[in-house]
Amino acid sequence: MSFRIIRKQEFDKARAAGGDWATRLELFAAMCRYNALVAVKKAGSGHLGSSFSAADIITYLYLEEMNVLDVGFDSDDRDVYFSSKGHDVPGFYSLLYALGVVSEEKLLMLRRLHGLDGHPEARIEGVESSTGSLGMGISKAKGFAIAKNYKKAGGRVFVMTGDGEWQEGQIFESLQAAAHQKVSNITAIIDHNKYQTDMLVKDVNNIEDIRAKAEAFGWHVQRVNGHDYAALRDSIKAADSDERPSLIIADTVKGKGVSFMEDPVTDASGRAYYKWHAGAPDDDHFYKGLVELRKTIVALAEKLGVEPIDAPEFEIEAKTSSKATKEFVAQHYGDALVELAKTHDRFMVMDGDLSADCKLRDFEYAYPDRFIENGIAEQDMASTAGGLALMGIVPVVNTFASFLAARANEQIYNNAGEGTKIIWTCHYAGLIPAGPGKSHQSVRDISLFGALPNVTIVQPCNGVEAKALTEYCVVEAKENCMMRLNIGPSPETIQLPDDYELKVGHGTALTDGDDALLVGYGPVMLHEALLASRYLKEVGFGLKVVNMPWLNRPNAEWLAETVKPYKNIFVVEDHSVVGGLGDWLLNSLNENDALGDRKFRKLGIYDYPECGTPWEVLDYHGLDGMSLAKTISGDDALDSKIDAGEVEKKYTADAPQ
Amino acid sequence: MSFRIIRKQEFDKARAAGGDWATRLELFAAMCRYNALVAVKKAGSGHLGSSFSAADIITYLYLEEMNVLDVGFDSDDRDVYFSSKGHDVPGFYSLLYALGVVSEEKLLMLRRLHGLDGHPEARIEGVESSTGSLGMGISKAKGFAIAKNYKKAGGRVFVMTGDGEWQEGQIFESLQAAAHQKVSNITAIIDHNKYQTDMLVKDVNNIEDIRAKAEAFGWHVQRVNGHDYAALRDSIKAADSDERPSLIIADTVKGKGVSFMEDPVTDASGRAYYKWHAGAPDDDHFYKGLVELRKTIVALAEKLGVEPIDAPEFEIEAKTSSKATKEFVAQHYGDALVELAKTHDRFMVMDGDLSADCKLRDFEYAYPDRFIENGIAEQDMASTAGGLALMGIVPVVNTFASFLAARANEQIYNNAGEGTKIIWTCHYAGLIPAGPGKSHQSVRDISLFGALPNVTIVQPCNGVEAKALTEYCVVEAKENCMMRLNIGPSPETIQLPDDYELKVGHGTALTDGDDALLVGYGPVMLHEALLASRYLKEVGFGLKVVNMPWLNRPNAEWLAETVKPYKNIFVVEDHSVVGGLGDWLLNSLNENDALGDRKFRKLGIYDYPECGTPWEVLDYHGLDGMSLAKTISGDDALDSKIDAGEVEKKYTADAPQ
Repeated sequence: MSFRIIRKQEFDKARAAGGDWATRLELFAAMCRYNALVAVKKAGSGHLGSSFSAADIITYLYLEEMNVLDVGFDSDDRDVYFSSKGHDVPGFYSLLYALGVVSEEKLLMLRRLHGLDGHPEARIEGVESSTGSLGMGISKAKGFAIAKNYKKAGGRVFVMTGDGEWQEGQIFESLQAAAHQKVSNITAIIDHNKYQTDMLVKDVNNIEDIRAKAEAFGWHVQRVNGHDYAALRDSIKAADSDERPSLIIADTVKGKGVSFMEDPVTDASGRAYYKWHAGAPDDDHFYKGLVELRKTIVALAEKLGVEPIDAPEFEIEAKTSSKATKEFVAQHYGDALVELAKTHDRFMVMDGDLSADCKLRDFEYAYPDRFIENGIAEQDMASTAGGLALMGIVPVVNTFASFLAARANEQIYNNAGEGTKIIWTCHYAGLIPAGPGKSHQSVRDISLFGALPNVTIVQPCNGVEAKALTEYCVVEAKENCMMRLNIGPSPETIQLPDDYELKVGHGTALTDGDDALLVGYGPVMLHEALLASRYLKEVGFGLKVVNMPWLNRPNAEWLAETVKPYKNIFVVEDHSVVGGLGDWLLNSLNENDALGDRKFRKLGIYDYPECGTPWEVLDYHGLDGMSLAKTISGDDALDSKIDAGEVEKKYTADAPQ
Repeated sequence: MSFRIIRKQEFDKARAAGGDWATRLELFAAMCRYNALVAVKKAGSGHLGSSFSAADIITYLYLEEMNVLDVGFDSDDRDVYFSSKGHDVPGFYSLLYALGVVSEEKLLMLRRLHGLDGHPEARIEGVESSTGSLGMGISKAKGFAIAKNYKKAGGRVFVMTGDGEWQEGQIFESLQAAAHQKVSNITAIIDHNKYQTDMLVKDVNNIEDIRAKAEAFGWHVQRVNGHDYAALRDSIKAADSDERPSLIIADTVKGKGVSFMEDPVTDASGRAYYKWHAGAPDDDHFYKGLVELRKTIVALAEKLGVEPIDAPEFEIEAKTSSKATKEFVAQHYGDALVELAKTHDRFMVMDGDLSADCKLRDFEYAYPDRFIENGIAEQDMASTAGGLALMGIVPVVNTFASFLAARANEQIYNNAGEGTKIIWTCHYAGLIPAGPGKSHQSVRDISLFGALPNVTIVQPCNGVEAKALTEYCVVEAKENCMMRLNIGPSPETIQLPDDYELKVGHGTALTDGDDALLVGYGPVMLHEALLASRYLKEVGFGLKVVNMPWLNRPNAEWLAETVKPYKNIFVVEDHSVVGGLGDWLLNSLNENDALGDRKFRKLGIYDYPECGTPWEVLDYHGLDGMSLAKTISGDDALDSKIDAGEVEKKYTADAPQ
């Protein structure tokens, strides 16, 4: 393994150092930042900006304030800490490693299967609560605190929130209820680093003045420099001695500790733009960051008179990135919106602080008067869309599927019941990318929309279909639409026939084969389906793969015709086996007595989605091409009979780019 | 029809009167209250307390402020008004009737099929938006206002909220976003009548100081007497001239205009308790209220010098209420919690301002330290439960199914992913009672929980099963449980065999029969299923009815055995046909190749749930006993072959009470 981190014993050395206590903490925090940078670089993704802004706060809490290392994580009397935003978890894992809670092996398995999830998971030692979807933390802290009171246990509850997170209404529910219920043993800390995803909080959806707000909600509020340990100490002392629940607004710098990560740039519209929210830095920036942190560490160690800290220098092999430009289905969707806007003036686009990820920036710049950036407030966004629709506008509402389908579910029901038309675009649908973990992976969205009688659910498999479906949804559809989009680059560009035409309720065959039928959708699962068909072809098993973009509106006649020649029918999806396309097809076949004695099997997610690399996670869930091929053929030894690598190469070479 | 209302021409007379404008409005509002009282009495239920507190505000808006009667409801330039809380709709319908928007026939069909829904529905002329689930209104108003700006249309947007409603976090999302987006053409008005369901807002979950809160969120705020027309006029003028979105806190009296409805009583714990939130008054109180309002009307008319207003005196036939005491399944659940608490100290009970409806008051009084009243803040409640569970407590979380399953869905997912155990009790599940309309009817809850891999979903059919399942969920279950409870009185007490024992995954036969199998659950649908079997027996058709309380955990072997003798299998549910028990049974049969050539049909909700009386709505959805019997037997003329009334009588006489 070429990645190296600062070892636990170096942290012990730093903690044992004499000299100024604040300098000791500063050194410890810099070392945590160093390891977080390595872990994220190795993982290939992760949130450094807020890991760095929060590092001094958690360093102070665990080294100076909390009793948990003494009494243990199982003690009811422990001080509890967790981060509500959860994005800052690479920094937190680094701290847990430094404290001996998490192993070196695990830290270098950030975002890997059986490693450390991309957002906090309660199953990991030292992690008190699963988080990552925003706004839940103070409520959960309230639960911890009430349980402590009921059990007459000691210990305080600290919860870190982001600042953009304060756009979530649940925060204010929790402030109000905590004050009313007189839950005094909570201290919430805002890592107020001023930036949410990539823009200033004040540009997205200004949350100022937090102090006045929280005070109006009956909380004790202080504002301090979140990089000043003495100030943090004093503020927590003051919080402890107040009868009310306490909020500490900690002013911090996003990316703190690595100079180039502290500086925003300017985007095309002249706004401040922050580049280091998520994602691993390229090799140059990675080394530059390491060098800078190493310098800081050396200087602080010297200042404290500690023996030199081993902050390892090492070289990693530059990754050879594939030259081929991968397709992003969502980009075609975003382009289609820009194109449609030229001729259709009755739709508007809404976003929940994910404009860049949702490929909406071009629309945002081109049609600022038709673009509503609503911040991280999905319920408000959904109901605002409802109001727009009642006034004859077709709102096209965008955010990640997990947040839209679940958090705004009742608002979506309310709107749909009004008989207006709204397009709900669920980005980051499905299992992959799997690095961010289950707070972000969306495998329930179809089921969450499914019982709404007037919503058509679709998912395009490639750019062509994305454009066609966008036009269908925005212009042609008579009812609400939910569009499911994979967020990552398509593993391969799915090829539709030259004479492809979008036809409601109909799928399109991608391969021919006589031995079994496999229906799927979206670029991620269709790629695996195609892999399966290619593997199986090697052993003479003909698998017909059908792309079915209409997830809840199968045309019964087409479906009956399509399954007719087959004894074995499979449906594959990056969604729960409950409530997905499989259930819709099974029901259609059953209702129309078209199933007969055919075997119909659903291949999808049976458990919570796992974190890891795409291949790890697809394999874990039995949804990678080889697992599919084995399941479909019933041949468990298939992998020993063919050279999967050779098969893949053959088709990659053949594929048009 | 024995119910009579004040006719439209009387309102015209009042509006045309000379004299003091405020007195004229007062008269008009009193007349609206009169009609609201009649409409609610006729409907048998409805919200009078907040209809009366809000009456002066809407009277002022429509008679003095808004342009909508001149420009029409289709004009983009109209002033828009709607109520976010929606409970005040009997008063609003009365106003719409008085203004000639809604017909007399409709007003007297409050809460009836094809009449006026128990909460506002956008399909009704004059109703701008469907509401009734709390907290969405200001967001929707923002949508109206933004659309007006985009269309360069005139007109303002007024939205009424309740005060308890300010416990919902979405309110604060909408305040924040509206201020940031500089949506100035919104005026929100709080009908601040101090009481939520039946308790003081300040006792449930104090929202004070609203002024400080809303100001901190960047809104222009005023506080006025909501029964003082001049003060309302001045405040709206001030709101119009301010650049910010505006909030008017209108202090009102719940039940205003009928003296005995203005007064709270005291509950067993010494708290103020308000009796007139929902439900129709008994005959005595009804006449007493009418007499008082008539006196007010006469006095005001005299003062204005208007000819006497015809506020009709009439007698209604006293309803002969059935002597039999009906079973409330939820009461047995509530009793079971009290009983279990004696021997199990590790569970706590949470409530979202529906303690009485959820039959939790006994628990609340008996175990105040284990009861958390969280107010109308479902997301906070769900995540607080998550925190409790992480500390080893089993939280039993209660509110209406619609609000819990949908609004807190992401929070429930987050908790469930932590592997803790929480009981989610979804009260008011299903179609019936149908009077409150689709905001309250819950026909998606199973589908919303279905794709969570570690939640067992159950529904008891009677008190015995309710107790057994409560103990199972709280004590025995190893995973999360969702318990679905019908809220109304059971139409008949479902009789389980004497040797009944709860067995995971197994159903229980209620009748025998060789010709078809019908699986159902819960007292409402099983009653209809039993009716169907009784009707069919008359024509020699044997229908086996099976109670299946395990909605997503069928035991495959038991199911295969149960269906084996039948060619025709039906599942009936007061849930969407998507994602309910039917899908779970179909999947189990399919996976285990146990379906064969049997016909399997799902009988459930295909569209949005309709409003009306139980029979109207069951019939509308084809789910009443006769419709079921016809569908199952395929005999469309069944009703002409038997005397359904006689059949029912026979079984009612037979049934043990």
